[in-house]
Amino acid sequence: MTLPTPAPAPATSASPSARLGIGLDVGGTKIAGGVVTENGEIVHRLRVSTPPGADADTTVEVLRDLVDRLRDRHPEVAAVGAGAPGMVRWPEGHIEYAPNNAYRGLALRRRLAEATGLPTVVDNDANAAAWAETCFGKGKGRDNVIVLTVGTGIGGGLVLGGALYRGQTGLGGEVGHIIVNPVDGHECGCGAVGCLEAEASGTALRRMGRQAAEREPDGPIATLAAGTELTGEIVHQAARQGDPTAVDLFDRLGTWLGVGIASLVNVFEPELVIIGGGLVQTGDLLLGPARTAYGRYAFARDLRPLPPITTAALGNEAGIVGTAALALAAAHDAGHDAGLERP
Amino acid sequence: MTLPTPAPAPATSASPSARLGIGLDVGGTKIAGGVVTENGEIVHRLRVSTPPGADADTTVEVLRDLVDRLRDRHPEVAAVGAGAPGMVRWPEGHIEYAPNNAYRGLALRRRLAEATGLPTVVDNDANAAAWAETCFGKGKGRDNVIVLTVGTGIGGGLVLGGALYRGQTGLGGEVGHIIVNPVDGHECGCGAVGCLEAEASGTALRRMGRQAAEREPDGPIATLAAGTELTGEIVHQAARQGDPTAVDLFDRLGTWLGVGIASLVNVFEPELVIIGGGLVQTGDLLLGPARTAYGRYAFARDLRPLPPITTAALGNEAGIVGTAALALAAAHDAGHDAGLERP
Repeated sequence: MTLPTPAPAPATSASPSARLGIGLDVGGTKIAGGVVTENGEIVHRLRVSTPPGADADTTVEVLRDLVDRLRDRHPEVAAVGAGAPGMVRWPEGHIEYAPNNAYRGLALRRRLAEATGLPTVVDNDANAAAWAETCFGKGKGRDNVIVLTVGTGIGGGLVLGGALYRGQTGLGGEVGHIIVNPVDGHECGCGAVGCLEAEASGTALRRMGRQAAEREPDGPIATLAAGTELTGEIVHQAARQGDPTAVDLFDRLGTWLGVGIASLVNVFEPELVIIGGGLVQTGDLLLGPARTAYGRYAFARDLRPLPPITTAALGNEAGIVGTAALALAAAHDAGHDAGLERP
Repeated sequence: MTLPTPAPAPATSASPSARLGIGLDVGGTKIAGGVVTENGEIVHRLRVSTPPGADADTTVEVLRDLVDRLRDRHPEVAAVGAGAPGMVRWPEGHIEYAPNNAYRGLALRRRLAEATGLPTVVDNDANAAAWAETCFGKGKGRDNVIVLTVGTGIGGGLVLGGALYRGQTGLGGEVGHIIVNPVDGHECGCGAVGCLEAEASGTALRRMGRQAAEREPDGPIATLAAGTELTGEIVHQAARQGDPTAVDLFDRLGTWLGVGIASLVNVFEPELVIIGGGLVQTGDLLLGPARTAYGRYAFARDLRPLPPITTAALGNEAGIVGTAALALAAAHDAGHDAGLERP
C-alpha cells in the first residue's frame, strides 16, 4: 500500500518533563495528527490526505503509520486519542457511521490500541474539539459550557458539571440536531426536517445563496458566482460588499442559530456558549442576528443576565488537542471509562 | 394568623429503623406535605390550601406549621425538602419567581432551615418529581432519564449520569421551554414564542379547543362546553366520543410533544423518556401521535433502537417523595451541594 505523502510540518520540542499524547483528527478529506503536551500545546504535526474510498483496514493503516512517525520524533508519548465525525460509541470508540468516510462499523479504539500498544480513546470529533475549547480555550475553568461548531454542518459538545456529556452510549450531544423548524424547515442530512443544522449551517447558507442567485440572476451573489460554484464564501463576499440580499441571508441564518442557542440554553443553563467553526469568521453578520434571536427566545431573559455567547479561541487544531487531552486523562486514570478528567 | 384547615389524611406507621424525611410541595392553590421513608413510601400526609395572595412570611408560616404537625407524629424526621414551581436557585433554594404564587425573591431554604432547625433543601418542583420517578418509579436503576410533566404547563427534569442536572445556578432543565415552533408558534407564558409548553400543554389544548368550538358552534366540543368553561377535559371527552375534530387536536398536540421529545433525545440520548402529568391520562390519544413524530424527528433513528417513551409510575405525590429524597440525601451527606445521591 502506498501511503499519501504528508504535508511538511515544522517540529518544535516539548519541555522534557511534560507528558505527551498523540491526537488524531480523522476527516473525510484529510487526516491530521499531532503530538500534544498536557497543556494543550502541539509540539509536532503531520497531515495526510484521506485515501479516497478508504475502508476500515486502510484507515487503520494510515493512522498507524501517522502514529509511528509521530512517535519516532517523540518516543515518550503516553497515549493516543482519535476523533472522527459521525456516530461514535463511547467508551467503546466504535464508529458506527461516518457520513464522509467509506468505512462503517469500525472498532477504531480496539484496532488502534492493538496497532500501537498505547492506551487509546476514540470520540466524536466535535466532542473532542469542545473538550479542547473547555480545557484550553475560552471555556477554561468553567464547569458548564456549550460549544457549537458552525461549518458545513453543525456539531458541538456539551460540558456539564466539568465533564463531557455524551449520552448513554455516546450518541448524545447532537446539538446540531435539535429541531428548530419542523413546520417549514428543510430536510437535514440526518433525514429529519428542520434540524438546526438544516437551517443554520454553511450548507443552509449555500442553499439560500443558490436560491437568491436564481431569483436575482443579475444580483451581486449571481455575479460573483458566475463561472464558479456558488459557495457560502461567495454569499459572505456579497454581504461584505453591502448586498442587502446577502445580508438578509445572514440575518436568517443567524436568527436560526440564535433560536437554537436559546433552546439549548433554556435546557442547560451553561455559563458560556462558545461558537466555533468556519462560519464564525463571518463575525457579526452571523452573530449579530444570532444574539438578537437568542435574547428573544431565551427563558427568563428579563430576570437574569443571560449566559454570554463568545467565539472559539482554538481553530482547526482543536480536534487534535482535544483527543490528545482525552487520551492523556484516560491513560492517567488507567481506566477507560474515566477519560473525562480535566488536565 | 389563622391557618387553613388541613384535609384529613390517614396515618400509617413506618418501620422503626427507616430514616424519615419531610417533603413539601408548595403549589399555587394547595400546599401538600408528607413524611416519607428512604424507600419513597409516604407514611403520613397533610394538605392545606395556599392562603390567597400569601406573601413570603405567610408562606413560611404555613410551611413551618405543616412541618411542626408532621413532626408531632414522627419526631425522628431527619430533614426537610420543599419543591416549588418557578425559578429556584440551586443549591441556595432561593425562589426568584413563582408564576402562581404571590411571593417573589423568597429565600425559602434559609428560612425553613431557621424555622425548623432541620437540614433543608429547596428545589424546583418538577426537578423533585423527576428525581422521585428516577429513584422509585420507572427510572429506577437508570443513569440518564428525561422526565416530562405535561399538565397546564410542561415541566420536567433531567437526570444525567445518575444526578439531577440543574444548570449553573438551578435555572436549567427547562424542558418545556425548548423552542419547537418559532415560525408560527404561540406566545408562551415565559414571553417567548413557540416553546414546547406553548404548543403541547393542557393550556395549548384548551386554546385549540376554544378555537374549534368557535369554528364549529354546533360540534361536539362546543356542545359539551355549553354553559360551562371549555377545558382540556371537555376536548378529551369529545375525542373519546369519536369527534374527529377533537381527535385531530390531540394529533396536533401529540405531534408537537413528539417533536420536543425528539429534540431532547437528540441532545441527551437518555435510556428512557418518562411522561407524567395530567394529560398522560389521555393515553394513546396524546402518546400515539407523540411516538409517531418522535420516530420521524429522532437522530439516527434507523441505526439504533430509540430510547423508549413510557408513562410515569408516580402520580401527584412525586413532588413530596422527591423533595424528601433530596433532603435525606443532602442530610446524609451533611453537605448541601451534594444532595444528589440516590437512595
